[in-house]
Amino acid sequence: MTADTLDPDLADRLHRTPDGLLPVVVQDVETSAVLMLAWVDDEALRRTLTTGRGTYWSRSRGEYWVKGETSGHVQWVHQVQLDCDADTLLFRVRQVGPACHTGTTTCFDGRDLTVTVTDPEGQR
Amino acid sequence: MTADTLDPDLADRLHRTPDGLLPVVVQDVETSAVLMLAWVDDEALRRTLTTGRGTYWSRSRGEYWVKGETSGHVQWVHQVQLDCDADTLLFRVRQVGPACHTGTTTCFDGRDLTVTVTDPEGQR
Repeated sequence: MTADTLDPDLADRLHRTPDGLLPVVVQDVETSAVLMLAWVDDEALRRTLTTGRGTYWSRSRGEYWVKGETSGHVQWVHQVQLDCDADTLLFRVRQVGPACHTGTTTCFDGRDLTVTVTDPEGQR
Repeated sequence: MTADTLDPDLADRLHRTPDGLLPVVVQDVETSAVLMLAWVDDEALRRTLTTGRGTYWSRSRGEYWVKGETSGHVQWVHQVQLDCDADTLLFRVRQVGPACHTGTTTCFDGRDLTVTVTDPEGQR
């Protein structure tokens, strides 16, 4: 890997959306909570791998963002894994402060939908 | 919610891709491992909520699939959460057998990329 491009062998393996992106599941390495979903292109992935800071492509703003750059709620990336189809990434991070811009620990907290059928073998 | 359409209040809240889909992070409710990423449209979400079985839209095959329908590796969905932007779902499931079609427990197992910078305050 050079300083300014993603490893070409890795780049060849990635299966991107038509926009050139991959979704990233971000998980807390200490609690295993799923914190958020974000997106990377090759450059955001390269920046993440070479800086250790969760860095993404904002689809709404059309720009790169380093998580926590303004809020201070940074993500130190401990582990990066590519899935079996090479179209999704998992970042395991040490999250400083809440992950969600609304102030909740994760972007999913307190946002439950109702499942109307119960697992026959498990407690809900 | 009626038998054959998604709750219209919920449908109004969802922010879908141009293809009408939302990504779903699937997490093991017992181990908290992130198992896989999948996609739903309104109908797959409705089927999941009303059957308790992880049901998705296959972008490659262009059809609905009930996870485990052929492999037996079903997902009983214990919890469904929508994220703060209403554009991503988290399913917490009891996974029967391996989640990945390759036979690994998760779709991310053993597929690490190298992060070249270490968290200054944490062990990698």
